[in-house]
Amino acid sequence: MDFYDVIRTRRSIRSYRSDPISEEVLNRVMDAARIAPSGSNRQPWKFIIVKDESLRQRLASICGGQNFIAEPPVAVVACGYDIHRNRGGYMGEMSILVDVSIAFTHLIQAARAEGLGTCWIGAFDNNQVKELLNIPENFYVVAVTPLGYPREEKFREPGERKNLEEIVSTDKF
Amino acid sequence: MDFYDVIRTRRSIRSYRSDPISEEVLNRVMDAARIAPSGSNRQPWKFIIVKDESLRQRLASICGGQNFIAEPPVAVVACGYDIHRNRGGYMGEMSILVDVSIAFTHLIQAARAEGLGTCWIGAFDNNQVKELLNIPENFYVVAVTPLGYPREEKFREPGERKNLEEIVSTDKF
Repeated sequence: MDFYDVIRTRRSIRSYRSDPISEEVLNRVMDAARIAPSGSNRQPWKFIIVKDESLRQRLASICGGQNFIAEPPVAVVACGYDIHRNRGGYMGEMSILVDVSIAFTHLIQAARAEGLGTCWIGAFDNNQVKELLNIPENFYVVAVTPLGYPREEKFREPGERKNLEEIVSTDKF
Repeated sequence: MDFYDVIRTRRSIRSYRSDPISEEVLNRVMDAARIAPSGSNRQPWKFIIVKDESLRQRLASICGGQNFIAEPPVAVVACGYDIHRNRGGYMGEMSILVDVSIAFTHLIQAARAEGLGTCWIGAFDNNQVKELLNIPENFYVVAVTPLGYPREEKFREPGERKNLEEIVSTDKF
C-alpha cells in the first residue's frame, strides 16, 4: 500500500472480528517494528504477542476495561529497557519512550498496510501489565494494541485535526 | 512510494546538497505530521521550519556541533506542550514524548517518500533550542532534523538490527 494511503486511512479500531492472523502477515507486521530506527541504534525494545485468551481478557481489564482489546486473536504489548544506561542526551532516561514509540508507529502502520486494525492504548497500570506478562523490573511498558481484522468494512472519517497554520511556523515559534 | 519501501530504505542522512525544497513537497511532509494520531487526539505539537541560515548554524552548534544539520536549506524542530494537563494515564507528563514521536516519525517517513533525507537528532540542550527559536516555557523540544536532498545517490546498507527472535515473544516476556 502507498505510504500516504497508509497514514491517511489508518483509524483507531474498537470493534474486531475473531478471524485468525496468518503467521506470514504477523511476521511482516512485527518486522516493520524490528527495522525501526532508534537512538544510537540501541533497539531498546521488546514486543510481546499475547495470544492466550485469558491473558488478553486480563490485559483488557488492566487497560481500563476496554473490552474490545480482547476481541481479536492477538494483542501486542511493547516495552523498553535500559533506561539508565543511555548516554545522556536530551531527555535522559525517557529516551526509550521515543524509541519504542517509533517502532510501535511502524507496527501500527504495517498493520494498516496488511488490512489489520489497531488501537494504540496508553492508559494502563505499568506494574499490573508487567506482573501479568512476567516483564522484568528494568523494563517499562510503553504501549498496547489489539491486532485483528476490523468488524466494520466501511471507511470512517478521520478525527478532526488542526490546520497546518496552527501547528507550523517558520524560523521562530 | 510503497509503505514497506519507505521504512526499508529510510536512512539517517548526514551529508546534504543545498538544493531548495519546493513548498509543495514541504507541505506534503508537514501534512504527514499533522494527520498523525495522538492520545485523545490532543495533537500537542508544534513544528518550526528553520530556513534562516544563521539560525540553522546556531541550531547545529547547539546539537553538539553536528554541522551537517545546517547543510540543507531546512531544519525542522518538533516540540510538544501541555504536559501537565493530560488526564493521567500511563506515563503522566511524559505522554507528549510519545505523541510528538509519532508525528515526527510520520514526517521522517514522508520525507523519505519524497526523496528527501533526514536525521533524527535527540542530543541537544532543550533550553538553548527554546531560547534560539522563542519557544514558550510550557513547551518541550522533542526532536530536530535537517531536511534536504541527500548528497550521496547510492543506497547504503541499513544499520544492523536484532533478529525477530530476540525482540518478540509470545504470551509471556
